[in-house]
Amino acid sequence: MHDFISKKVGIIGGGQLGKMLVSEAAKMGIYTVILDPDEDSVAASLANEKIVASFDNHAALLKIANRTDILTCEFEHISTEALKYLENKGFTVYPTAEKLETIQNKFNQKTKLRKHGIPVGDYLKADGIEGIKDAVKIFDYPVVLKTSTGAYDGKGNSIIKCEEDIEKAFMELGGNADSIYVEKFIPFVKEISILCCGDMNGELVIYPIAENIHKNSILYDTSVPAMINESQTIKAIEIAKKVYNIFGSVGMLCVEMFLTTNGELLVNEIAPRPHNSGHYTIEGCITSQFENHIRAVVGLPLGRTDLIMPTVMRNILGENGYKGVPVVEGAYKVLAIDGLKLHIYGKKETKPNRKMGHLTITAPTLDKAREKADRACKIIRIISK
Amino acid sequence: MHDFISKKVGIIGGGQLGKMLVSEAAKMGIYTVILDPDEDSVAASLANEKIVASFDNHAALLKIANRTDILTCEFEHISTEALKYLENKGFTVYPTAEKLETIQNKFNQKTKLRKHGIPVGDYLKADGIEGIKDAVKIFDYPVVLKTSTGAYDGKGNSIIKCEEDIEKAFMELGGNADSIYVEKFIPFVKEISILCCGDMNGELVIYPIAENIHKNSILYDTSVPAMINESQTIKAIEIAKKVYNIFGSVGMLCVEMFLTTNGELLVNEIAPRPHNSGHYTIEGCITSQFENHIRAVVGLPLGRTDLIMPTVMRNILGENGYKGVPVVEGAYKVLAIDGLKLHIYGKKETKPNRKMGHLTITAPTLDKAREKADRACKIIRIISK
Repeated sequence: MHDFISKKVGIIGGGQLGKMLVSEAAKMGIYTVILDPDEDSVAASLANEKIVASFDNHAALLKIANRTDILTCEFEHISTEALKYLENKGFTVYPTAEKLETIQNKFNQKTKLRKHGIPVGDYLKADGIEGIKDAVKIFDYPVVLKTSTGAYDGKGNSIIKCEEDIEKAFMELGGNADSIYVEKFIPFVKEISILCCGDMNGELVIYPIAENIHKNSILYDTSVPAMINESQTIKAIEIAKKVYNIFGSVGMLCVEMFLTTNGELLVNEIAPRPHNSGHYTIEGCITSQFENHIRAVVGLPLGRTDLIMPTVMRNILGENGYKGVPVVEGAYKVLAIDGLKLHIYGKKETKPNRKMGHLTITAPTLDKAREKADRACKIIRIISK
Repeated sequence: MHDFISKKVGIIGGGQLGKMLVSEAAKMGIYTVILDPDEDSVAASLANEKIVASFDNHAALLKIANRTDILTCEFEHISTEALKYLENKGFTVYPTAEKLETIQNKFNQKTKLRKHGIPVGDYLKADGIEGIKDAVKIFDYPVVLKTSTGAYDGKGNSIIKCEEDIEKAFMELGGNADSIYVEKFIPFVKEISILCCGDMNGELVIYPIAENIHKNSILYDTSVPAMINESQTIKAIEIAKKVYNIFGSVGMLCVEMFLTTNGELLVNEIAPRPHNSGHYTIEGCITSQFENHIRAVVGLPLGRTDLIMPTVMRNILGENGYKGVPVVEGAYKVLAIDGLKLHIYGKKETKPNRKMGHLTITAPTLDKAREKADRACKIIRIISK
């Protein structure tokens, strides 16, 4: 039997997702190398090696590929040209450049989903202000203007509620007519996400469905299990599996969906990697999304994804008005809360709304977990020195 | 509220226990520095900083103390003189030099336990071969000859079954009359261990009692919960708490006990640190012994110790006949076993009986977990290139 443990994994991106990947790899004795432009990236301090360079630096990508057996990434905004260049040289990259390419462009992503019969909200390409106006004629207000590429945490999205918003939104998103599209606003009751992981033999594991609440377009709360009914659960899993078959390669993929006011499930977005809404899996599930991603990319079989207990995750963001060396206030008090786990990423600088850590609470009921999370969120603060 | 998260922790010893401590500290954003003579120690690769020097190097100890806020250790065979030197300079060390001193000398440890009314097996100081013979007259065969200091994993112990064994055992243990003592052999039905952790306010948490099986004097299997009755459980916890009050300072302490054939509980040994028999707490409990040790020494409150599910832990040792660069064989097959987690320490060299990793299985029943562990142990092997 081949010795999978001796494979080295290169991770493009040294943020908190990279850190959690490195931590799980280290547990199994798997060697990791991090590529990140930041000398002090939080993943690099745990990894066996680091390469400090920008993500589109071909020489650096070649270097990390040469030092490892498999490349993977903690975010999807990587030049697929660079990845294709590596693949053409015979290196293994998960997700593959081909899969990543369509995911990166959200307009193309949606079009591909629709082509495969996956339910998505209505949308239209808009070539500038006139195009937006045309779309509004069909969809009516409100609509959401989005950039096709590079969006995250609400950046690259703008809601248009009336005609006056149109030009403002267009300029806010860069004023580039080539890269925008308009989505019909979806009146949703819930946003859920389904984490999937595929191994090299095509086996797929699905995590318990998570229910997400965003604040200012940044994930605020993930609660598991999602409070949806059985038929919705079955339907959501069915959709997620189909999406994985289209967009998945090897490793984690997150499918975000809206549950609309009329009971429909519409796929909103896809992330081909471990996802913020899957942080809950560290304490909440038998095998975390990070461990399963590592197991997948090195060719190991996947671990069980069962939920151990109802779990609530809350992101901890840099507080408004503070910038600089971070100080975690209230750690003592929140860690006194039963069943609470605190993750602090170790970023060297805080700024408003930057993801600085998260907390997870497991409890016998979701209500109890949520009550504790509410209490904790009133106490913990990330300020600066 | 003071920002406890910003405290830096120095860890003396860079083995697997140190690695697991570093990993938990990193999760909470706590900075760690490892002191170990081995350039490639497994904990150092994860830590923020490392100092490569021997454990009794005063300059190195002063260096790690100066770079951190609290010192702790992953093993107990550290010069207490060196620790006292640091304490006298105002540095904080857990366990304290005073507590460590009596624990290090197993004869003194036993004497102190007995003085405080803790049940221990019979033992006698033996000043050489004649002394051993005198002890045998009182205890009868078999007896166990032990060195007072520096023993671990069966090293420093020798069973004497008949007169011919006496000289052999004495020479095997170094032939030093000053450092040996004789223990009456205890016919035990079970060996259990109780992990305790104390915080800075004197609050104590107790982990579910673990049942241990040794092979060739090295821990082989830990099963939790221990199959002992309620009154034994109550009694064992009561003893463990008393022991912590005598020997504990801040952080983890492990109390090993024998359950004898006549139903008595006798304390066998104490370790003032996270312990191999507590590896099961990583997957088996809400808060691992490593997280709680870190929380304790930086002054945070402790996490819940509840057992999530019945858990079996098995050590993975270097196979006989192999020495050199390790190869993990069978990782693919064992990771296909439901609920199994694999820890590989990443040591650069394997040798017979060296602890190279462990596996943990959580399952709805202990029988199921044990059946899976048995299966896994037949598959996984550490050989060499």
